[in-house]
Amino acid sequence: MEIVEVSPRDGLQNEDRTLSTEDKLELVARAARTGVRRIEVTSFVRPDRVPQLADAAEVVAGLPDTGVAHSALVLNARGYERAVAAGIREVTTLVLASDTFSQRNQGMTTAEAVEAVRDIRARGRADGVTVAVTIGASFGCPFEGEVPDERFRSVAARVADLDADEVCLADTIGVAVPSDVETRFGVLAELSPSVPMRIHLHDTRNTGVANAVAAVRSGVRALDASLGGIGGCPFAPGASGNVATEDVVYTLHRMGYDTGLDLDECLEHARWVTDRLGVAPSGRLASVGGFPA
Amino acid sequence: MEIVEVSPRDGLQNEDRTLSTEDKLELVARAARTGVRRIEVTSFVRPDRVPQLADAAEVVAGLPDTGVAHSALVLNARGYERAVAAGIREVTTLVLASDTFSQRNQGMTTAEAVEAVRDIRARGRADGVTVAVTIGASFGCPFEGEVPDERFRSVAARVADLDADEVCLADTIGVAVPSDVETRFGVLAELSPSVPMRIHLHDTRNTGVANAVAAVRSGVRALDASLGGIGGCPFAPGASGNVATEDVVYTLHRMGYDTGLDLDECLEHARWVTDRLGVAPSGRLASVGGFPA
Repeated sequence: MEIVEVSPRDGLQNEDRTLSTEDKLELVARAARTGVRRIEVTSFVRPDRVPQLADAAEVVAGLPDTGVAHSALVLNARGYERAVAAGIREVTTLVLASDTFSQRNQGMTTAEAVEAVRDIRARGRADGVTVAVTIGASFGCPFEGEVPDERFRSVAARVADLDADEVCLADTIGVAVPSDVETRFGVLAELSPSVPMRIHLHDTRNTGVANAVAAVRSGVRALDASLGGIGGCPFAPGASGNVATEDVVYTLHRMGYDTGLDLDECLEHARWVTDRLGVAPSGRLASVGGFPA
Repeated sequence: MEIVEVSPRDGLQNEDRTLSTEDKLELVARAARTGVRRIEVTSFVRPDRVPQLADAAEVVAGLPDTGVAHSALVLNARGYERAVAAGIREVTTLVLASDTFSQRNQGMTTAEAVEAVRDIRARGRADGVTVAVTIGASFGCPFEGEVPDERFRSVAARVADLDADEVCLADTIGVAVPSDVETRFGVLAELSPSVPMRIHLHDTRNTGVANAVAAVRSGVRALDASLGGIGGCPFAPGASGNVATEDVVYTLHRMGYDTGLDLDECLEHARWVTDRLGVAPSGRLASVGGFPA
């Protein structure tokens, strides 16, 4: 199971305190020391919407060449162009599973978002840039509630048609349970048998680790997590953020899965970033440590 | 899956603030309103060791007759006698899986603890009192660390020989992961094919919900949980307590399992008890609520 460290993007995006560019680069450098092979370093979105990441180009310009892949989130062609101009060679794009959420977040329907990603996908092919697609709110929507099976299947079929390098199902508001993970990745695998699958988890309702376990057992190859579980959830004030990298690493390692990450390094840097943000760790491991020696 | 509400016992036992007898009875009454059918109401142990529960007999004397089963924890014949004299008809006894922990907690080896339970079991048969056995630290010990497979099997075999009404495996220090739950309940089911199995979980390392899911899928029929996730862990200062009833109920219900509990009632009483104790809820649901309507 590959861990994708998303604290510099999804984590920082939802925190009140904005880190300096220097601190962001320090976070990326520390994340690399955990052993992770892919880090989502920022997003190229409207700075008036996400002021925490307004320095996206400066962050990318300052990235060290450590052999770790650096990806960025983009929502449209403009963001894609800015990301590539800054030096990004791997982007994640977003299609929200419900129209209401898509309209509110991106000002377009789900079908229009699919077409925006199709355009980015074509540009990516021309530029040699890797393009992943995340289906946001795959397990529930903050506005519409349930995302029915047939709706999910229809969106996943449109996304499958894009022939992306990777498809990620995101539990954007942290409502999924393991049976949801198993069912929806089953649909995805049926529609796109050869595409690598990734999951993006929030621990909002304490199901993050259970969902990570369900995912690894469902053939999901990569998992988004954040050091310290930073990030919160914009739709649940006061909630925890992404599932904590260190909590997932503890669980997967004890289950015999190799992530390539070092738990002690994770704990050190989880404590560093939460201290820097002035928040308590949202995961559990950073407070209590691993298995007693 | 039957939820056993243990907040009045394991929850209160590990909190700094001691509730009044009246508040304890209020907690039991509120727990009953969630729809739970069994509540561990107190323990009959040495009041100098667990001052929070020194009023065990007064609590039992004040219990309403609501049709809900009321159990108590006892560690030896003296505790059993006090419990039965107070009116308890269902006890849980304890055998710790490691000798070091057993010596420190109960002043006897694991083998001696098994004999103490054998005595309680005989008394229970004579008195018509139900006797469950918990194997504490089934997944890890705060002093010895790993509890090896052969050690667990040996302890489980001794416990199987007691022919108890129920056997519970406890993750006393909150280190278990789902594969541990599956493996150790598999051993238990092999040794005692007909005994009802129960699990006792702490969410210390954020694996509580994942372990609950693994348990229900492994044929475990009952699960100990605490409203608000109260209780902490005496071996991990600042840690969360038992897995939160409301978090488990959310997850199991969304997976299609019926617990008989009402989530809104759980949330209300989780908030009440944490407010009464002056602590933040340790589970997630009490802060963010259930699936968005």
